[in-house]
Amino acid sequence: MTVTADQVRDVVLKYVEAWTKGDRQLLLSIFAEDASWCDPVGTPAFTGHRGIAAFWDFAHQDSARQMTPEVNRIVVCANEALLDFTMKVRVPHLNQGLDLRVVDRFVVDDSGRIQTANAYWDQSSASAPDGMDFFIPNIDEAYE
Amino acid sequence: MTVTADQVRDVVLKYVEAWTKGDRQLLLSIFAEDASWCDPVGTPAFTGHRGIAAFWDFAHQDSARQMTPEVNRIVVCANEALLDFTMKVRVPHLNQGLDLRVVDRFVVDDSGRIQTANAYWDQSSASAPDGMDFFIPNIDEAYE
Repeated sequence: MTVTADQVRDVVLKYVEAWTKGDRQLLLSIFAEDASWCDPVGTPAFTGHRGIAAFWDFAHQDSARQMTPEVNRIVVCANEALLDFTMKVRVPHLNQGLDLRVVDRFVVDDSGRIQTANAYWDQSSASAPDGMDFFIPNIDEAYE
Repeated sequence: MTVTADQVRDVVLKYVEAWTKGDRQLLLSIFAEDASWCDPVGTPAFTGHRGIAAFWDFAHQDSARQMTPEVNRIVVCANEALLDFTMKVRVPHLNQGLDLRVVDRFVVDDSGRIQTANAYWDQSSASAPDGMDFFIPNIDEAYE
């Protein structure tokens, strides 16, 4: 294993930056070509850059949808990391929102890219912001 | 996959109960015979009931050491779970203590027992309670 804790942390921070800025290219650049991403764990994986791009495009299909990740904490262990964050989704014109607390587990390969991403969240992780209706994405749209 | 979310959650609660009560037999009963446990991720795994018992016995070698897990949250995804908790370790006669925030990732097999346990924590996860000195266990003692 050649990757350092600083490299692993840097990848996690870039992941957060990509979501914060809506930077698709940055997001793809931190994933290995043959990466897999389950979100949440237990659902079919998105695989390779093509699959990861499909997941990203699903999340960004509506330009009126605002997504802001707020980091709760980051834990780095060898070539793995946990990112505990709350994705704050807002759709102002519909007065809809979603605060989804997610723990992403990342396994980083020797080149410093994400080989495996596993997102952990369940029903208890989701809440609607005060005064807003629940925004519920239809993840089925992300699968081809 | 035949295990239900309720079964997975039940295993996590039994894990917490085992640490709370100091119940070695309960702990072993919820692990598969060939389970592996890395604590933290990146260190050599404890494998099988023999290895898991060695880890448990290391943690309980000093009867003056009090260990109380406080659950922050539990997330269940299919046959996996995350347990986010703080292990409160106290050694009153030495005025030493440790609050270690741990996220355990469990993979549960079809029989409802833990196949894989991965504990995530790093230096930022550890703190000393107010007015107490840092208690720092020597994990090397747990390996034979």
